[in-house]
Amino acid sequence: MITTHQLEHWLQEDIGHHDVTNHVPGETTGRLVATEPGVAAGLEAAARVFEYLDVTVEASVTDGTTLAAGDQLLRVSGPAKSILRGERIAVNVVGHASGIATRTRTAVDAAQQESQSVRIAGTRKTTPGLRGVEKRAVVAGGGDTHRLDLSHMVMVKDNHIAEMGLEDAVAHFRERASFGTKIEVEVERPAAAPQAAAAGADIVLLDNTSPSRVREAVETLTAEYPDVLTEASGGITLETVPAYAKTGIDIISMGSLTHSAPSLDLSFRTGEP
Amino acid sequence: MITTHQLEHWLQEDIGHHDVTNHVPGETTGRLVATEPGVAAGLEAAARVFEYLDVTVEASVTDGTTLAAGDQLLRVSGPAKSILRGERIAVNVVGHASGIATRTRTAVDAAQQESQSVRIAGTRKTTPGLRGVEKRAVVAGGGDTHRLDLSHMVMVKDNHIAEMGLEDAVAHFRERASFGTKIEVEVERPAAAPQAAAAGADIVLLDNTSPSRVREAVETLTAEYPDVLTEASGGITLETVPAYAKTGIDIISMGSLTHSAPSLDLSFRTGEP
Amino acid sequence: MITTHQLEHWLQEDIGHHDVTNHVPGETTGRLVATEPGVAAGLEAAARVFEYLDVTVEASVTDGTTLAAGDQLLRVSGPAKSILRGERIAVNVVGHASGIATRTRTAVDAAQQESQSVRIAGTRKTTPGLRGVEKRAVVAGGGDTHRLDLSHMVMVKDNHIAEMGLEDAVAHFRERASFGTKIEVEVERPAAAPQAAAAGADIVLLDNTSPSRVREAVETLTAEYPDVLTEASGGITLETVPAYAKTGIDIISMGSLTHSAPSLDLSFRTGEP
Amino acid sequence: MITTHQLEHWLQEDIGHHDVTNHVPGETTGRLVATEPGVAAGLEAAARVFEYLDVTVEASVTDGTTLAAGDQLLRVSGPAKSILRGERIAVNVVGHASGIATRTRTAVDAAQQESQSVRIAGTRKTTPGLRGVEKRAVVAGGGDTHRLDLSHMVMVKDNHIAEMGLEDAVAHFRERASFGTKIEVEVERPAAAPQAAAAGADIVLLDNTSPSRVREAVETLTAEYPDVLTEASGGITLETVPAYAKTGIDIISMGSLTHSAPSLDLSFRTGEP
Amino acid sequence: MITTHQLEHWLQEDIGHHDVTNHVPGETTGRLVATEPGVAAGLEAAARVFEYLDVTVEASVTDGTTLAAGDQLLRVSGPAKSILRGERIAVNVVGHASGIATRTRTAVDAAQQESQSVRIAGTRKTTPGLRGVEKRAVVAGGGDTHRLDLSHMVMVKDNHIAEMGLEDAVAHFRERASFGTKIEVEVERPAAAPQAAAAGADIVLLDNTSPSRVREAVETLTAEYPDVLTEASGGITLETVPAYAKTGIDIISMGSLTHSAPSLDLSFRTGEP
Amino acid sequence: MITTHQLEHWLQEDIGHHDVTNHVPGETTGRLVATEPGVAAGLEAAARVFEYLDVTVEASVTDGTTLAAGDQLLRVSGPAKSILRGERIAVNVVGHASGIATRTRTAVDAAQQESQSVRIAGTRKTTPGLRGVEKRAVVAGGGDTHRLDLSHMVMVKDNHIAEMGLEDAVAHFRERASFGTKIEVEVERPAAAPQAAAAGADIVLLDNTSPSRVREAVETLTAEYPDVLTEASGGITLETVPAYAKTGIDIISMGSLTHSAPSLDLSFRTGEP
Repeated sequence: MITTHQLEHWLQEDIGHHDVTNHVPGETTGRLVATEPGVAAGLEAAARVFEYLDVTVEASVTDGTTLAAGDQLLRVSGPAKSILRGERIAVNVVGHASGIATRTRTAVDAAQQESQSVRIAGTRKTTPGLRGVEKRAVVAGGGDTHRLDLSHMVMVKDNHIAEMGLEDAVAHFRERASFGTKIEVEVERPAAAPQAAAAGADIVLLDNTSPSRVREAVETLTAEYPDVLTEASGGITLETVPAYAKTGIDIISMGSLTHSAPSLDLSFRTGEP
Repeated sequence: MITTHQLEHWLQEDIGHHDVTNHVPGETTGRLVATEPGVAAGLEAAARVFEYLDVTVEASVTDGTTLAAGDQLLRVSGPAKSILRGERIAVNVVGHASGIATRTRTAVDAAQQESQSVRIAGTRKTTPGLRGVEKRAVVAGGGDTHRLDLSHMVMVKDNHIAEMGLEDAVAHFRERASFGTKIEVEVERPAAAPQAAAAGADIVLLDNTSPSRVREAVETLTAEYPDVLTEASGGITLETVPAYAKTGIDIISMGSLTHSAPSLDLSFRTGEP
Repeated sequence: MITTHQLEHWLQEDIGHHDVTNHVPGETTGRLVATEPGVAAGLEAAARVFEYLDVTVEASVTDGTTLAAGDQLLRVSGPAKSILRGERIAVNVVGHASGIATRTRTAVDAAQQESQSVRIAGTRKTTPGLRGVEKRAVVAGGGDTHRLDLSHMVMVKDNHIAEMGLEDAVAHFRERASFGTKIEVEVERPAAAPQAAAAGADIVLLDNTSPSRVREAVETLTAEYPDVLTEASGGITLETVPAYAKTGIDIISMGSLTHSAPSLDLSFRTGEP
Repeated sequence: MITTHQLEHWLQEDIGHHDVTNHVPGETTGRLVATEPGVAAGLEAAARVFEYLDVTVEASVTDGTTLAAGDQLLRVSGPAKSILRGERIAVNVVGHASGIATRTRTAVDAAQQESQSVRIAGTRKTTPGLRGVEKRAVVAGGGDTHRLDLSHMVMVKDNHIAEMGLEDAVAHFRERASFGTKIEVEVERPAAAPQAAAAGADIVLLDNTSPSRVREAVETLTAEYPDVLTEASGGITLETVPAYAKTGIDIISMGSLTHSAPSLDLSFRTGEP
Repeated sequence: MITTHQLEHWLQEDIGHHDVTNHVPGETTGRLVATEPGVAAGLEAAARVFEYLDVTVEASVTDGTTLAAGDQLLRVSGPAKSILRGERIAVNVVGHASGIATRTRTAVDAAQQESQSVRIAGTRKTTPGLRGVEKRAVVAGGGDTHRLDLSHMVMVKDNHIAEMGLEDAVAHFRERASFGTKIEVEVERPAAAPQAAAAGADIVLLDNTSPSRVREAVETLTAEYPDVLTEASGGITLETVPAYAKTGIDIISMGSLTHSAPSLDLSFRTGEP
Repeated sequence: MITTHQLEHWLQEDIGHHDVTNHVPGETTGRLVATEPGVAAGLEAAARVFEYLDVTVEASVTDGTTLAAGDQLLRVSGPAKSILRGERIAVNVVGHASGIATRTRTAVDAAQQESQSVRIAGTRKTTPGLRGVEKRAVVAGGGDTHRLDLSHMVMVKDNHIAEMGLEDAVAHFRERASFGTKIEVEVERPAAAPQAAAAGADIVLLDNTSPSRVREAVETLTAEYPDVLTEASGGITLETVPAYAKTGIDIISMGSLTHSAPSLDLSFRTGEP
């Protein structure tokens, strides 16, 4: 959720102490329109901004809707002054979130041409302060949030394994984490994948591994541990997604979905019918 | 400045209620390293994150430093648990800000091949909550912050002109804004540029105007109003920057610097000397 | 984590605008001592309170330590005024958390006399504002946090099943939740337990079910779905815990651990060596 | 008052970044019902939670109302999603506050069987963050808030007396505190009670003193200082309340009212008429 | 207390997103000096500002110290950039608080020439956000805080009396307020003063009453109710204070102490020894 | 803008944990009335306070309206309890802001008798936490906000000049500040004014300079640099304003407008038609 504190921070950092340009009298309307194709996201945040300013908001689409250039995302009506104040922030947050949703959709489409069941997932590489907005934007694009925060799922990493050994590390966290928490184990070599599964991993992560070695690891693992999920990660791009999707992997995670997606181009038009 | 509230929001959204994986005893060190070339930014935010966690931070570079792949940005030492907690957020914020600085530098370099005096500027199209961080990242890349917020500078827009007429609109804001506030006038047609200058604009903005028409407007304007600054804006890309830079324009502003710059690739390495 | 805002709220609500009684000059020391047996918890919160006030804190025990009457939990030294200001809040939060840990330990001990593997878990019935503190206190007492928040694990409830049917409800959430999120299904009748497992539940919750019917359901379920966890919940008390523990159930959850545990009796003694 | 920040903290700590289970379409209703007898409190906080979520709230009772099992506390109607989001927090806060009110009422009833005029009071031993909610719950149960915060009333304690002597300590605080602030003096021995009254105490607190010695002190004190109030405190339980009430004491304060009252059992029922 | 949130608000509202003028390298020192005579107050707030910025602060005086022109209030040393950032805020808050303390001292001196025992008190007419700072400034000037907030003391006003009658109103609040809370009754006519005392008022307030009628009321009241305090309020100025002080009244309260005291003139000098 | 956090701080610091006096049932109305002549300001803040409390507000005047004694500023209607809660804060903030507006108007009137074009401006000497409210109050009184914050305009001060020399200092900041930021140079000697203009100052500030020397400097400067603005500052009072206004100076700034204006006397009357 977006707190009032955060919302007011967004407004305050844009307005400052004395803005003379928005003191426009009367009522007006406004429309948020996509000027390029994409996928809508962040609409709840935009609605929060306008509603805070006593502007009435009607969403024309929902998060996840495919947009053609010219499609309207939402329509507002209310005091001209308030609409002018909210407009820039609404465009910024919806453009940002929709950019993430759009890139996610592109990755999902690329992957699903090779595998109907593979999931494209985000990472914890999100913009500080926008974890929830960005995770939900990944979902809007057809992706999987992956770990929402460090408490959501245990990730057993190389430093844990180096310190405790793989079996003991998994047992250590199985003991300490809730029964409701899944445990994922990151392995550096495909050969370690079955060992991780044997130790009790719910998911095995193959980091920085080539598609061919991923395929090999997935085959070995699945034969013996059909219920264990597999994930590939590390520098996977829109270009290499299909190659990974073909390997039989369950999840492909990509930091670039959230940290490097360009904003979706939007236009806010006031005073239109 | 980054408030304690914001800093704790960044940490909290990543940690959750019960993270079992970071309870690593002892002290360690860590290094933040660029894995691709770029320009450093956001270092103050990273330092704030680590210092909040009682981790000692030594910056190896400053905002604006050109980075080669492999260059170290900062080095930390302190409790392993705290370093692990801060690492992801530090990478996220420095990667984000450095991505903006890097793209700004690219734009500045492209422009300066055509004009030593042209300034590349950001816009108000920033990520909600990060206005200051992103504006300072633009500066780190050699750019100009442009309007920090609505109170910093008056922008007379088409809706103001439609309502009051150009002369009256400028007079209206000259009366209401402080003597310390500059007034920029956005014109839709180059022909309106001298009219804006005559009305008292400190800066004239040519929005969505082709380089050739920009050049023409700049020449006309400068002949008569040598002290009035000129700005071009609207869909200018890294590719079209040189063409605009050649027109004699004073400022080229680009929303993409902040809303669409990919994150700079960084790596955080713990336990290294 | 306890934010600075929350910490200052705790101090401010106790101090008010003008407290004349704590203006004691000089330095002193203080000791937080248990005056009845129990289990320590909440020490990190107490340390935060004192450190905020520039008081040096030395923990004598850690969260989870068994305390005899007279055992010291922590020792502080610093300005007398600051120690007096922090004392009441430290006692309140450690007493509250330790009361939860103590009651959890009692429940765990009672259960483990019947089953070494059964887990005692908390619920979402926590005191508003203290979710993290209370969840970690349950862990200190040897318990399991259970769902940290609604995003941590999916709980399929009767209203979902009524609306979509059990199979569709589980499929619906499997699609929408992350691969990293477990799904628990609440069943009203033991007979529905295998159906839930077949639908893909990771955990089956038997709500308000007598021990004998729980045993029956667990046996049926485990025979067919050995990897599915089982949980009993609903009005289970310290008295009835053993009867449930004997059923072979994996998890027993009790709201009373957090919402009804009496505070552990503590004493803060200043000026002692 | 409950601030928006606090309210959003309550919601946020329970919801997390991506809750998929509460996206229920349509409108519904809900009823908060007592499932055991008690005294209502915390209703304002519950109303705040629901109103924040745009749910309409109708209180069926007020703070202080005696509840039989089955009695309805409040009724809500609005978006199903919002009601599901607010439900758990409303139950938690009303259960907690009503538990305190209920225990207070029990203590008041026990005391008033022996004395019509004795007051049962809370202490500063409240749950961090809930000072106001808990103090008002004590009032709902028929009790007295006692000191709201350190600035509300001066409490002269043994360390002050050790340092300055009783007379000087009272004079010291009479000088520094407002004319609008009462001064209470804590005495370790009943014999010191008249001395405290002579020094100017408005209230004399007999800490950890047996009923018989309390009676003796009260009699001595009242004979000479009829306007000075007397308070007994320190380990007084529901069992020993009557013995203290019989002594003629004016106020009996009990930390357990706030720090150890079990939650009142409540049920939230959705979709009912 | 001044929260971190408030402190950062003070800094943030003065700095903005990108201040280029304070990036001064190196260390320096600074001295806060009175440039006119007065009484020091607000030093704790200034220390908080500088300490937040990692500047070392040494107070040369304490709140309440009488200052001659040229007297130093505090001395700081640390990073030049931080000192420059804190300077303006420190001057603003200390100037404001010291202005209040200075005016309070003037009123106290004027009153005490006529009566050694009369107290000069503030009111609730404080600047929003600075209740605590201003109340403590009144104390620094030798005044009495009066009601810190609405919960500190009950004020029975004309609207209560109109609704319930004087006796019932006092009884009503005696029942609802804590035993630790004093009750003051505002009377419109001096003749009502003994009635208020008889009803149980701890303090009787004579509002907008001339000195001669105040004297009369005080004499009547004191004869019968020697323990009841008396207060005069309403448009009392530095000029009329002595006339009121002579009446035998216990407290004279003046809103102008906090809402209309001019700032004390201070100078912050950097780089001096 | 006034954030919800700030608004709730204002309410909370005045209410405390348990206010028994405002629990008045039913609806009522209230009117905020000036009891002395002045200029209205702060009305938006008052409206925010009442609207937060669900009280309907109708403004009778706007910020900047001239008030005669008896003039109504706003009218409210709603729950009596809420109106009583908001009343004191509304009076405090409107009285404070209107006091600033009134003093500004007095200064403006005094100045304009000598010069139609001179502007009276505030400074950064504002009450911590109220920068925006006070700047807008200066505008309501017919004044100029001057620098809103350190990022709004560059002020080159003696320490910069001492370190870098005047020309280099201006060039340094021209390079680092945005093209949208004006640069003002503070000169200690009138003779330095043309030098500052030559270096590129947009505004030249004559600090602590007598009217006759100001006139001389203005004349010299204007002859050569007609577009450069001039400002006089430093200990200018309502008495000396006319003398400065006569010098031809463009701006006269006065710290006393914000830090020493007495509150405008207002009365809040409930229950009136």
